[in-house]
Amino acid sequence: MKEAINLLYKRRSIRKFTPQTVTEEQIETLLRAAMAAPMSNHKYLSELIVVTDRAMLDQLAETHRYTKMLKEATLCMIVCGEKANRAWEQDCAAATQNILLAATGLGLGSVWLGIHPNPDSVATVRGLLDIPDTYSPLCLIAIGYPAEYKDPSDRFDLARVHRGRW
Amino acid sequence: MKEAINLLYKRRSIRKFTPQTVTEEQIETLLRAAMAAPMSNHKYLSELIVVTDRAMLDQLAETHRYTKMLKEATLCMIVCGEKANRAWEQDCAAATQNILLAATGLGLGSVWLGIHPNPDSVATVRGLLDIPDTYSPLCLIAIGYPAEYKDPSDRFDLARVHRGRW
Repeated sequence: MKEAINLLYKRRSIRKFTPQTVTEEQIETLLRAAMAAPMSNHKYLSELIVVTDRAMLDQLAETHRYTKMLKEATLCMIVCGEKANRAWEQDCAAATQNILLAATGLGLGSVWLGIHPNPDSVATVRGLLDIPDTYSPLCLIAIGYPAEYKDPSDRFDLARVHRGRW
Repeated sequence: MKEAINLLYKRRSIRKFTPQTVTEEQIETLLRAAMAAPMSNHKYLSELIVVTDRAMLDQLAETHRYTKMLKEATLCMIVCGEKANRAWEQDCAAATQNILLAATGLGLGSVWLGIHPNPDSVATVRGLLDIPDTYSPLCLIAIGYPAEYKDPSDRFDLARVHRGRW
């Protein structure tokens, strides 16, 4: 499994997509990946919304200035957490990271578009997707076949590492 | 890279460890993996604390009732975020997930031990590790050679999937 670690470096934020659509099998792989993420409490499971409808993707693209690439993406996944779970944000972030990594493994491009905790963005997404008040969307994940290439990331910085204590 | 996706399913919470220590090369791989995670804002980078000292691991094991396995673990990594970054929790959670996945890829066991937002746990860890007030630890990650085996996760549940909208 040591080579599999390269998946972590190959994942980059891809914001340009071709018109080729993602298959149902690929969507299922992405959902399985999300559900394999660790959870703080089995009472509170993350919920996932899958959007492939062009008109809805175009509306979601208007959420804020950094979501425009949803006009090109052929898939958007939205990870939602139950607000009663005080670790919902962490749980949903781990699930989001797994979706991004699975997309990379499938040869798809993807990018994490922050929504929470911006109240305007949360309200827009909640309204478009009928998300109940007891849940919150963490982010939009734009996914599609990549129309740009980026080298694997190399951001190693020992200045951010503390040994023994801070 | 399609086989690499199996890494996501192989990652399970491992809470029993052998006394074999983790090497410096493995620690560097885990740090690189953490830093390859996506970040909401390049102004705010997560900081990492690496603990291998037996006495400190034993003290961290007393943080709360679910951190006891740090008495067996030979490594603890702590991901900290700058509180001024309103997405620090998400950023640190993505970095944590990458550390867990890289550990899995190296044949190590690991488990995510929640700290934030429990004020007592945060205060204990902050005190032991001299974490500045402007940062918060998200979690403790217990790592070591596994002394238990778990099958890959299979938690696929279509009831948590919404198509088109909630």
